[in-house]
Amino acid sequence: MEFTVAQIAAILGGEVEGNPDAVVNALAKIEEGKEKSLTFLANPAYTEYIYTTGATAAIVSKSFVAEKPISATLIRVENPYESFALLLETYNKIKHNKQGIEQPSFVSPTAVLGSEVYVGAFAYIGANVKIGNHVKIYPHVFIGDNTQIDDHTIIFSGVKIYSDCVVGKHCTFHSGVVVGGDGFGFAPNSENNYKKVPQIGNVIIEDHVEIGANTTVDRATLGSTIIKKGAKIDNLIQIAHNVEIGENTVIAAQTGVAGSTKIGSDCMIGGQVGIIGHLNIAKGTKIAAQSGIGNSIKNENEIWQGSPAFAIGDYKRSYVMFRKLPEMHAKLMALEKMMLEKNKA
Amino acid sequence: MEFTVAQIAAILGGEVEGNPDAVVNALAKIEEGKEKSLTFLANPAYTEYIYTTGATAAIVSKSFVAEKPISATLIRVENPYESFALLLETYNKIKHNKQGIEQPSFVSPTAVLGSEVYVGAFAYIGANVKIGNHVKIYPHVFIGDNTQIDDHTIIFSGVKIYSDCVVGKHCTFHSGVVVGGDGFGFAPNSENNYKKVPQIGNVIIEDHVEIGANTTVDRATLGSTIIKKGAKIDNLIQIAHNVEIGENTVIAAQTGVAGSTKIGSDCMIGGQVGIIGHLNIAKGTKIAAQSGIGNSIKNENEIWQGSPAFAIGDYKRSYVMFRKLPEMHAKLMALEKMMLEKNKA
Amino acid sequence: MEFTVAQIAAILGGEVEGNPDAVVNALAKIEEGKEKSLTFLANPAYTEYIYTTGATAAIVSKSFVAEKPISATLIRVENPYESFALLLETYNKIKHNKQGIEQPSFVSPTAVLGSEVYVGAFAYIGANVKIGNHVKIYPHVFIGDNTQIDDHTIIFSGVKIYSDCVVGKHCTFHSGVVVGGDGFGFAPNSENNYKKVPQIGNVIIEDHVEIGANTTVDRATLGSTIIKKGAKIDNLIQIAHNVEIGENTVIAAQTGVAGSTKIGSDCMIGGQVGIIGHLNIAKGTKIAAQSGIGNSIKNENEIWQGSPAFAIGDYKRSYVMFRKLPEMHAKLMALEKMMLEKNKA
Repeated sequence: MEFTVAQIAAILGGEVEGNPDAVVNALAKIEEGKEKSLTFLANPAYTEYIYTTGATAAIVSKSFVAEKPISATLIRVENPYESFALLLETYNKIKHNKQGIEQPSFVSPTAVLGSEVYVGAFAYIGANVKIGNHVKIYPHVFIGDNTQIDDHTIIFSGVKIYSDCVVGKHCTFHSGVVVGGDGFGFAPNSENNYKKVPQIGNVIIEDHVEIGANTTVDRATLGSTIIKKGAKIDNLIQIAHNVEIGENTVIAAQTGVAGSTKIGSDCMIGGQVGIIGHLNIAKGTKIAAQSGIGNSIKNENEIWQGSPAFAIGDYKRSYVMFRKLPEMHAKLMALEKMMLEKNKA
Repeated sequence: MEFTVAQIAAILGGEVEGNPDAVVNALAKIEEGKEKSLTFLANPAYTEYIYTTGATAAIVSKSFVAEKPISATLIRVENPYESFALLLETYNKIKHNKQGIEQPSFVSPTAVLGSEVYVGAFAYIGANVKIGNHVKIYPHVFIGDNTQIDDHTIIFSGVKIYSDCVVGKHCTFHSGVVVGGDGFGFAPNSENNYKKVPQIGNVIIEDHVEIGANTTVDRATLGSTIIKKGAKIDNLIQIAHNVEIGENTVIAAQTGVAGSTKIGSDCMIGGQVGIIGHLNIAKGTKIAAQSGIGNSIKNENEIWQGSPAFAIGDYKRSYVMFRKLPEMHAKLMALEKMMLEKNKA
Repeated sequence: MEFTVAQIAAILGGEVEGNPDAVVNALAKIEEGKEKSLTFLANPAYTEYIYTTGATAAIVSKSFVAEKPISATLIRVENPYESFALLLETYNKIKHNKQGIEQPSFVSPTAVLGSEVYVGAFAYIGANVKIGNHVKIYPHVFIGDNTQIDDHTIIFSGVKIYSDCVVGKHCTFHSGVVVGGDGFGFAPNSENNYKKVPQIGNVIIEDHVEIGANTTVDRATLGSTIIKKGAKIDNLIQIAHNVEIGENTVIAAQTGVAGSTKIGSDCMIGGQVGIIGHLNIAKGTKIAAQSGIGNSIKNENEIWQGSPAFAIGDYKRSYVMFRKLPEMHAKLMALEKMMLEKNKA
């Protein structure tokens, strides 16, 4: 997609300083700007780059005063960062504007599709599935029987959603996400091996949830595994059966949450964290990367670290001492020796 | 699927107390029972819920004596838990009773399919593949050339099994499982970069193995990576080339086992554990979540924790002291000071 | 595929000792050799197995002198290991020699395919995609609009590559790999929830890169996430937006690299390592499994361990003391008691 600087200035309500017919086809960081790219200057710390950027055009503040010549054509706006963000969003919308039903795809005769949906080739939509309006289902997606996907949700290529699940509005699931696989439930039997506990619950994902590539969300044994409104789940995360993730909680990559644990709203959980099953994690809890949570967290807004985790300040103090342990040990040995010699004396 | 209470009582050989024509269409926990759901009371600790449950019907013991009025229709049986488990299994069987070959699918003319199989749309079955009876292959599954899948195994949507692998009876593979990808083997060459070591072995998965979503099992360099009978492998687990997992061993999510390690039978391995390559782990070993195993474990039935791991009791004792390290350090400094003053005196 | 020993000897330029018409159809380790398999003896430590192997044929050195009778037919060559490696490679090439376009597949009319490509059934190739010569695209692969794949690259079943990405020559991506999913970028907004930061950059993967099953590589916010020439990335790894991985760097399974971190060339990173965002990791750095890297590493060729990590020797010394902490604590208590008694006296 190519645009002239004049066209972009018109979208942003900005003023052109330079060549309005210059053509751009990409957005770039100011320090990486190349020909035909459009960049922006918002952070004063980056001002030096405006004089050297290879970008064809740059969005700058109306109040910006150049101290040297600038080769890029400028677009002057009130708030360069917001203008640039608006362009990013516009670009993204144009990119994901696919519509219609590609062939071959498999749509059960009992499935109901909303208006203006996209169904990519090789997508599979099972019996009694309900797909809302403006939903985009990319190639190779599998939607099991009776599952519902509400309006404006985007399901990227290769996502698998098992039967009987419920997905809200404006969600985004990235490639490889698996929603509704069986929870990991097995009971030892008399022959000293394991018998599967049937997993007949489902998964409910509320509005505005984003789930990263290859993350897995297991269905409940009974009832529902629930990811609440606005939660953001990164790549390669494991959400076990009957877990609940609170509103606007953010979880970084490769973290695992074991069965039946309930995480409150507004939590921030780092990468590679492990949380064992049947816990309650209070609202606003922050957990440092690689920590292991073995007990419920009752007080809101605390920060935890370690495996098993405790208060982050205490953890850091202990860890400083861990690094000094050989030195502490030497000192202890020396004191003991002195003491023994004193006792002899 | 809807059933009357009378129909369910007939399946269970139970007696109805209340309305035999009441209709149920879901199974629920007693504390979450809603209209049209069927629940059960087995654990006396949950007795209070029988008086308040919103479920339409409840399975209770023949010997249960109500102390207050109950709105749910009761089905009285010898063993409520077993009866409920029977219903769960029946429900699961009905749910996974798909059969026949959906189109479009790709079945090589040299592949052999057993009787009563299900092959979903967009499934790909390569040359010389053998599929047993009652096998269910969901949409988007890939089965590479020469691979064999034995009777009653269920392969959910999007599983990829490379060529030349062998899968036993009654296995379940969840979406996103990859079986038979190349092991991670590279040899540094004279030009100071890496040359791939061809991985021409395979993967053998014995009967009654369940593998969770997005888990990866690499093929052997030579010979076979083997998962033995009854092993249960959770989501997002890495099983490297030439690994062996023993019978009835259970591994929780996000654990990784490096190349050529052999894990004995009846082990229980927590989530996010890492086990390095070329080790032997004795039968019945238990490993706490997030532990790192750097040496073989020779004695059976021990419990390990830590990274690197040692005996769990010792680990816990050390970790208690880790938390007290700042205090210990302060005490050590104080003692040293006292000692130095004493020496001066 | 079956070959006679004479045929294999001809390929290797070796001499047959025994039955040249013996038939083999598999390659095996010497201790696991079965009928119709071909093995090799290179490492003197395995010499005993040559007398007991069940293999039909064995490649041995010209200089090897048998001390007992050997049942296998021998093929004598200059360098048995190199000869065997040559056979492994030949086997692998024959195995992956698929060519042509299977149906049904989806190739956009604006896509350009090179010569001698393989496109498996149910593969999806988007608009303006460019596929080089000898590229193999297995079933269920998704290649988004405008993406380029250069010559001789192999993309196994189910890989998803989003739009606008660039993949070099001689790369191998295993099943379940996701390249180009959105980076995990969200900005808190005034309503106390998160607004997505559009991710409009791409992923660039240079030549000779191998990526293991179910690994995820996110696209850049702006600019590119880059994996450089010769890097080898194992299974279930997370590479976040704007990360750069240096040439010939090797990363073991389940490691995660957070946004904008730059890893130098020739690094070796163990499994389950976590590296936080916006760091620089010097060339030749080695990181032990399960370590957590929280700061940039400036000096080349160092080895790190721990979470947070420090120099591996120091870590090991501290960890030895961690195991002795209960003992140290007891000694400290005893010293304190002695001191207090002394002071009283």
